[in-house]
Amino acid sequence: MKQTEISSERNSSTDAQNLEPWTNPTVVGKPLPRVDGYERVSGSAIYPADLILPDMLHAAILRCPHPHAIVKNLNTEAARKSPGVRAIVSSADPEGKLVIPYPWWVPEGPPVLLFDQHCRYQGEEVAALAADTPYQAYDALRLMKVEYEELSHLLHAQDALKPGQPLLHNTGNLVRRPDTYQRGDLAKGFGEADVLVEETYETSCEIHATVETHVAVARWEGEQLTVWVPTQAIYEEQKSLAATLRLPVSSVRVISQYVGGSFGCKAELSKHTLIAALLARKTRRPVKLALSREESFLCAGNRPPNVMCLKAGAKKDGSLTALEFTNLGAVGAYADWADAAGWAAGSYACPNIRTQDTEVYINAGKARAFRGPGAAQSAWALEQMIDMLADKIGMDPVEFRLKNVPATHPRTGEPYTSIELRECLLKGAEAFGWTKARVARASSSDPVKRGVGVASCRWITEGGPPTTVIVTLFPDGSATLNMAAADQGTGTKTIMAMVVAEELGIPLQKIHVEHADTGTTQYGKSGGGSHSVMVYAPAVRAAAADVKRQLLEIAAGELKRPAIELSLKDGKIVPVREPGQPKNLSELKDLTRREQIAGIGHPPPEPKGRLIASFGAQFAEVEVNVHTGEIRVIRLLACHDSGRVMNPLTHESQIFGGMVMGIGFALTEQRVLDDHQTGRMVNANWHDYKIPTAKDVPFDQLCLTIDPKDAECNSAGAKGVGEIGTVPTAPAIANAVYHATGIRVTQAPISPMQMLALLAARREAR
Amino acid sequence: MKQTEISSERNSSTDAQNLEPWTNPTVVGKPLPRVDGYERVSGSAIYPADLILPDMLHAAILRCPHPHAIVKNLNTEAARKSPGVRAIVSSADPEGKLVIPYPWWVPEGPPVLLFDQHCRYQGEEVAALAADTPYQAYDALRLMKVEYEELSHLLHAQDALKPGQPLLHNTGNLVRRPDTYQRGDLAKGFGEADVLVEETYETSCEIHATVETHVAVARWEGEQLTVWVPTQAIYEEQKSLAATLRLPVSSVRVISQYVGGSFGCKAELSKHTLIAALLARKTRRPVKLALSREESFLCAGNRPPNVMCLKAGAKKDGSLTALEFTNLGAVGAYADWADAAGWAAGSYACPNIRTQDTEVYINAGKARAFRGPGAAQSAWALEQMIDMLADKIGMDPVEFRLKNVPATHPRTGEPYTSIELRECLLKGAEAFGWTKARVARASSSDPVKRGVGVASCRWITEGGPPTTVIVTLFPDGSATLNMAAADQGTGTKTIMAMVVAEELGIPLQKIHVEHADTGTTQYGKSGGGSHSVMVYAPAVRAAAADVKRQLLEIAAGELKRPAIELSLKDGKIVPVREPGQPKNLSELKDLTRREQIAGIGHPPPEPKGRLIASFGAQFAEVEVNVHTGEIRVIRLLACHDSGRVMNPLTHESQIFGGMVMGIGFALTEQRVLDDHQTGRMVNANWHDYKIPTAKDVPFDQLCLTIDPKDAECNSAGAKGVGEIGTVPTAPAIANAVYHATGIRVTQAPISPMQMLALLAARREAR
Repeated sequence: MKQTEISSERNSSTDAQNLEPWTNPTVVGKPLPRVDGYERVSGSAIYPADLILPDMLHAAILRCPHPHAIVKNLNTEAARKSPGVRAIVSSADPEGKLVIPYPWWVPEGPPVLLFDQHCRYQGEEVAALAADTPYQAYDALRLMKVEYEELSHLLHAQDALKPGQPLLHNTGNLVRRPDTYQRGDLAKGFGEADVLVEETYETSCEIHATVETHVAVARWEGEQLTVWVPTQAIYEEQKSLAATLRLPVSSVRVISQYVGGSFGCKAELSKHTLIAALLARKTRRPVKLALSREESFLCAGNRPPNVMCLKAGAKKDGSLTALEFTNLGAVGAYADWADAAGWAAGSYACPNIRTQDTEVYINAGKARAFRGPGAAQSAWALEQMIDMLADKIGMDPVEFRLKNVPATHPRTGEPYTSIELRECLLKGAEAFGWTKARVARASSSDPVKRGVGVASCRWITEGGPPTTVIVTLFPDGSATLNMAAADQGTGTKTIMAMVVAEELGIPLQKIHVEHADTGTTQYGKSGGGSHSVMVYAPAVRAAAADVKRQLLEIAAGELKRPAIELSLKDGKIVPVREPGQPKNLSELKDLTRREQIAGIGHPPPEPKGRLIASFGAQFAEVEVNVHTGEIRVIRLLACHDSGRVMNPLTHESQIFGGMVMGIGFALTEQRVLDDHQTGRMVNANWHDYKIPTAKDVPFDQLCLTIDPKDAECNSAGAKGVGEIGTVPTAPAIANAVYHATGIRVTQAPISPMQMLALLAARREAR
Repeated sequence: MKQTEISSERNSSTDAQNLEPWTNPTVVGKPLPRVDGYERVSGSAIYPADLILPDMLHAAILRCPHPHAIVKNLNTEAARKSPGVRAIVSSADPEGKLVIPYPWWVPEGPPVLLFDQHCRYQGEEVAALAADTPYQAYDALRLMKVEYEELSHLLHAQDALKPGQPLLHNTGNLVRRPDTYQRGDLAKGFGEADVLVEETYETSCEIHATVETHVAVARWEGEQLTVWVPTQAIYEEQKSLAATLRLPVSSVRVISQYVGGSFGCKAELSKHTLIAALLARKTRRPVKLALSREESFLCAGNRPPNVMCLKAGAKKDGSLTALEFTNLGAVGAYADWADAAGWAAGSYACPNIRTQDTEVYINAGKARAFRGPGAAQSAWALEQMIDMLADKIGMDPVEFRLKNVPATHPRTGEPYTSIELRECLLKGAEAFGWTKARVARASSSDPVKRGVGVASCRWITEGGPPTTVIVTLFPDGSATLNMAAADQGTGTKTIMAMVVAEELGIPLQKIHVEHADTGTTQYGKSGGGSHSVMVYAPAVRAAAADVKRQLLEIAAGELKRPAIELSLKDGKIVPVREPGQPKNLSELKDLTRREQIAGIGHPPPEPKGRLIASFGAQFAEVEVNVHTGEIRVIRLLACHDSGRVMNPLTHESQIFGGMVMGIGFALTEQRVLDDHQTGRMVNANWHDYKIPTAKDVPFDQLCLTIDPKDAECNSAGAKGVGEIGTVPTAPAIANAVYHATGIRVTQAPISPMQMLALLAARREAR
């Protein structure tokens, strides 16, 4: 009898998913601190690196020190006898031939062998071992004797397709057929232009440089494998591990409850995770494998370097007439993406466009998705190009951009559910004091030149199924949220708990989030593509609404009035209209009898024929010291349309974090390979690879938002914000440098050396 | 669009719960080894005692050494300064006054303070501390100085209500008003009897003696408490901890993935768990608190001792006419149950009955539910009484029992969904060679006398809601089962995985069970009352059926034929009737697109107006050496009706385990209190408190079953088996001892000393 109730209660959960937007939210939109803030800052959060399991061994990996070599001989005998060593895996084992699957967004590529005797990058895995302590493991590694045949190496994309260069794979050095896009008539477009500009831009290879390096802890219980690994993609890693080890998917459990930064480099199965699993299986003991900082620089992904040739034309009224964008990117030693040109075709309302992306292999660690992948590199070129055009016709860069804001997506013609790019530019410019700052250049005698720059951005996000979340309410008014989403540090846990609090009218402190564990959650999409809030907020809201509906039905039965006349407030049942006595949940006998109410939610499908995208404009002010070449970013202002801002604190963290990365992109970050001699990376550490620190980040940082009240995108009204914050920062800085000095720096990062060289070249040219 | 599909698919899950019984199961009913067998025997299973958390402290408890005393003064200064000590809690702290809630089945009782200055039993908690190592913790305990005022103590139920005895509580020594039950006319019944017997039986206090002692590991993350504790009742412990600590229920997570034996003593919140949580909160570090073997004997529950006075009458044709059963039980120092008489009113078809249960406090550790609580003690008395009546009218004891098998429940008149007690007695007797064995006594000159005895039993089980389980199917044909149920060692995980395998036609190896974690599962009933299989098997079946229905609907869409014409076999889609090509799940595009199918199940409500009970009969053969008093059980045979036997291996384990406990009950197990002087337990260890070992258990042990094909009890057709196996064993042994020697031993255990004393008394009487 009761069962029928419970089941029939679930029947109308479809309705729960057609939810009206919140009209007057009391929790969502508030600047609330992280629900896991204490754990994260106090050190009590247990990241995979903190995990200690009984009898756990520690593993280490022997890596090829050369960018290109053949392993002729490997002798592990001495290492095997070294104190504490329990197991070794290498290409001599059948497991050594295991092939690591590419993530789903890389449809094909040459096979990635676990231990390939043909080593294609510095740091490629040659063998691994597990010992009682990490020290014993590293000591034993040194006893491994490897005979390498060094091969000549290829380090630059520009050389990859030239004859006589080393070939990385049987299929050659071309990753895939170049991807070309075209609309309109390019020649006609250039013909219609009043001004033409042509320029080549280059970006450097950047490292994700997450505070937490890659770590995996693996444990077998019989044929059941559990892996603790910081990842954005628990279900993808589960599937990849199961496929590689030929296990049922349900026999692999992936747990990722704390992630110490990811930015895209923790979204696919890594070799170290598989190695930990293999060593644990060999030894029947848990194995921890934590990469050193150096290893993470060499082997854990990067933003691929691009060489981008652009030609563009515009009329004097500021309208773009044509754009040609050709990109060459180096993915590293195995297949990935290094595209940039295609992105530009979706930015501005330009009728005639041709883009081409070509990707090649080089002898260096493989690229991985990196916050705003492709888009950030693309913007470095395009947003400077726009500035050059504006400069050439003597138009304000903000005005030029406003002129070319598209009404629909320029590539597909589809309308956006909302687009506030125009308002972002206008509101941002006003708050920044743009017009005044554009004219107020420093006097020419001062070696420190001031300038301001702007850049805009968009990011298309995709929500929708399949994803399932469960919200469970207890009779004491506390609740549990169960979802697949990891929290890479972005605040996903906090925001989703806020959605539950909003919907059920209970305090945030009474909501526990259980998440990011394939063993305990239902399938949910990976965190990535800035879609976490789009996928999960509507799903969580639907689940909470499902709980609420069931709860109000119980209350209706006990209070003998229709459920529609009741509501939830401050964790109590209250009448919707006339004043009445609030009823505590604990007084509802049927709730107590049921012990819990569980509600199930999915994200609703995407709106048909509409695109969902976030937009933004960023403004930078810089000081360039023309004597030293030093550049200081003294002011950054972002104005973004990310849909509803779920929590201003986490939203700001995203934007500020993105801008900090943008500063690094623009000014300091760069993988340096020794292309004179060894081909090795010379700055695989945080001393020589410089990410911005507190001293490099301007005190004057501001984040403004425009809420388009987008009811169409999803029931939360929220669009993504993860990636977009970093996309326009670097070109805004480069444009500011140009404004300050009149020098267009096309190559990122703008190091003092480069700046000085360009200043010297100009002096000579005069 | 897809979302609507997913939701509407859930609408008919009600149907999935009205499932027909399996007609020809291929997995259920097979003797399959445990799914977690490897982990359990290899030591790789992580029990709470095995858990190591970073920075974990170890706690120890200072306990009162006296059975009754007042703590006049407690000085913890020296302990506080002892090396490694990080925190102390005692009655001096506000937390010391926390009141531990009673479990739901003990409706009221005097408040149980965490650290009560009035200590009512040996081992009562006085203070506790946490230190870096267990050794430091125990060393520091010895530095605590306590001044006790010893009070006179009360050890025997018979003395409790006498004037002048020490009073344990303000309310006196009576736990609750005696519970009386009556039907028919007792005087009339005795009047109608041809024979009357009257006897007093006593049982001893037994200790659960689980292989794993009680352990708790507590960790706080902010205001969120996680407790690893071996328990049958994760959601009860969660609720009790939250109530005691005034936390939202969702802020407490209880995990119990491996339990090293429970038998009822791990079904309620224990003080040590709360202490671990408090010390962890004080130190902001994880704390492990593992009870020593001695502590577990003194403070972790027991089977209460009973004194049972019986008077019964029967006609010469074997029909019972009247039964009077008065029980006095000692619950220990705090409220619990020590009933026995009431159980007897539901056993046989006797028209005139009066029972009374009286429970009192004594100065000893509190009782807890213990496998067949009350029923085992009751059977010790009643099943011997039945034998005495049969003996008196010269009727075979099996025949006498057959004569009095009830048609409906004797107390309520409700019919059973099935009752095969008659068949159990008949089939068991035949297989045992009962008739022959009854006459074949050993020759009188041999000091070793042989005898056989029988006893029967019933156990009422209750399934039904609220309980929710989730089964998730992956496109590779593997599945995850998510449920609240702990596995106390009974095989619950294995059986529930078998239900999934049966319903979905996938191999057991491809099913992962995730369970016993309030953070990750939906509410499910505790394990207890032998109802795990009744609650969970139908729920799991319903969830799996829900998955199957959704899967067949997907297949129907892709194969363009009605779902009703399709079925699942060996993890493939096959046509129901005509032969056709099986289709792999991985070929179903819509399944791959959805990533998973989740099905939700609840146990259906109990059948109305019907009782569900298991029944059984056990037969014992013993040898009694009349020179030494030693008794050896040389043969045991059980014949049980537990409904469908889900897995003969785990079913046999339950019955054999129960019978081993029955041997201990009958022959060796007994808490011995020093009632001459100190009042302390003198055998709080496994050397002096003797549980049966391999040498005490007969090689000749057999378990037969009768399957009533009970389609009414639930969709699995299974009834409980956890408790019933131990209920009749001890009286069957006692009846066999009588058969061998002619001596009726009324007091359990039948030690050699007692046996010799009774033999000597008979010699003297002759």
